[in-house]
Amino acid sequence: MALVNGSIQELIELSDRGFQYGDGLFETIAIKKGIPCFFERHLERLHNSCLKLQIPTPCSKLLNSETFSLAKDLDNAILKIIVTRGTGGRGYRQPEAIKPNRILSIHPFPSYATSYKEQGVTARFCETRLGLSPSLSGIKHLNRLEQVLARAEWSDINIQEGIMQDLNGHIIEGTMTNLFYVKNNMIFTSPLLYSGVAGIMRGIIMELAIAHGYSLTVRDYKEYDLLTADEAFLCNSIIGIWPINSINTTRFGIGMMTRKLQYLLSEYEQKDIINNS
Amino acid sequence: MALVNGSIQELIELSDRGFQYGDGLFETIAIKKGIPCFFERHLERLHNSCLKLQIPTPCSKLLNSETFSLAKDLDNAILKIIVTRGTGGRGYRQPEAIKPNRILSIHPFPSYATSYKEQGVTARFCETRLGLSPSLSGIKHLNRLEQVLARAEWSDINIQEGIMQDLNGHIIEGTMTNLFYVKNNMIFTSPLLYSGVAGIMRGIIMELAIAHGYSLTVRDYKEYDLLTADEAFLCNSIIGIWPINSINTTRFGIGMMTRKLQYLLSEYEQKDIINNS
Repeated sequence: MALVNGSIQELIELSDRGFQYGDGLFETIAIKKGIPCFFERHLERLHNSCLKLQIPTPCSKLLNSETFSLAKDLDNAILKIIVTRGTGGRGYRQPEAIKPNRILSIHPFPSYATSYKEQGVTARFCETRLGLSPSLSGIKHLNRLEQVLARAEWSDINIQEGIMQDLNGHIIEGTMTNLFYVKNNMIFTSPLLYSGVAGIMRGIIMELAIAHGYSLTVRDYKEYDLLTADEAFLCNSIIGIWPINSINTTRFGIGMMTRKLQYLLSEYEQKDIINNS
Repeated sequence: MALVNGSIQELIELSDRGFQYGDGLFETIAIKKGIPCFFERHLERLHNSCLKLQIPTPCSKLLNSETFSLAKDLDNAILKIIVTRGTGGRGYRQPEAIKPNRILSIHPFPSYATSYKEQGVTARFCETRLGLSPSLSGIKHLNRLEQVLARAEWSDINIQEGIMQDLNGHIIEGTMTNLFYVKNNMIFTSPLLYSGVAGIMRGIIMELAIAHGYSLTVRDYKEYDLLTADEAFLCNSIIGIWPINSINTTRFGIGMMTRKLQYLLSEYEQKDIINNS
């Protein structure tokens, strides 16, 4: 089920710049009990990403009404919103009047094992490096070939995520997640200045950590820092927080900080759902 | 006019991975007198790009017959071939059986002034830097947001091309062209190891230069090297060679080497058209 500019449709014009150049951005939103979770944050990031890519933001009232009407009867689902620069222009040159296309599509919630949240997941390091591209870093844009190549590196169903480094060997994120680690009760994550997606869930976790007085450091770090951590965890808008129990041959315990943040997040999500009901 | 997997169609599924992630690649081919110019080279690059992106190459007999049947009545046109990883998979993860989609579309030949080839064009430096991404460099893939952002920097119709540097200040290419410069009768161009598209026309010019005994150096270079050059020129499969007559406030003469290469290229192109007629 998908809406293209408000009309039910499963197709898009070949000339759409999203198809021709990856010229657009997206949001992936969890729907629980008919409510799109953290919707205002997703709308805000979508607006900021549009600004950075110089695409006019689609009317937020329209996005709001289409989202809530698609979500209302769904218990557990995923909503993906794509905004592209529309059609037209000549080659890379954008048209003088940009008419963005907005595409909202509903997808089944993935059937992840409940053990992932409880006993943690297994991760590996990817060979594919993230490029350094400050003009695009942080944005959830449609240029995702590096993630596709990284995710194609393994097919072992016992490995749930691949961890990506940038060209300088800084650890940035998972293929579909952001990454945190904990050492001596201090929480660390990458600044994402040159690569990576600044996830909504990453932002929420950072806010929760600060609000509860935990030490949070945003800095570049490398393999050694991660592998000698006390705890490590992955996050995104769909999975929430998954503790990491091993990366290659290194095993991690699931520590108190990860459990506290899982608890705080679950509490915060419940409030969000109630506020939007 | 477009063919999607052989059928006339102007639409593509929303679920195509080209639209979702820019998960694919393309070729832009000049059609002259019913002949797709340098078609075998384009097919070869398409095949190599598919290998690098782990997309099965579409059958070259099919590509061949579809291309020649679309081209046969066209005097001057552009053929764009897009190959995507098709639909399916979960998120970035590719499906176990990849069924690529091939899209051939015909576009009018741009109405560039003949003076561009004769008296040269005006270029500017772009602010947008090309990211460093060795896993994708050289490939004409569908992740083209940097080029779109760079091309959006100017609207002055008297400027024909923008020159892009990478993060390290190395000059890489134009937004839609490759770039060469000439100093003391020696020809220089960028190696494209970390960014850029290895253009078909760039390859032909390099071969012609070597075959005629000219000195060709492929190396990193910066703004100073370009601005103190004797000659500079741009190339791609559609424009051939455009001399550069100025970059920002620096003016260039149109020197003998550029003229020789234009002549050699035109001769070589005529042979290619006759061989394929």
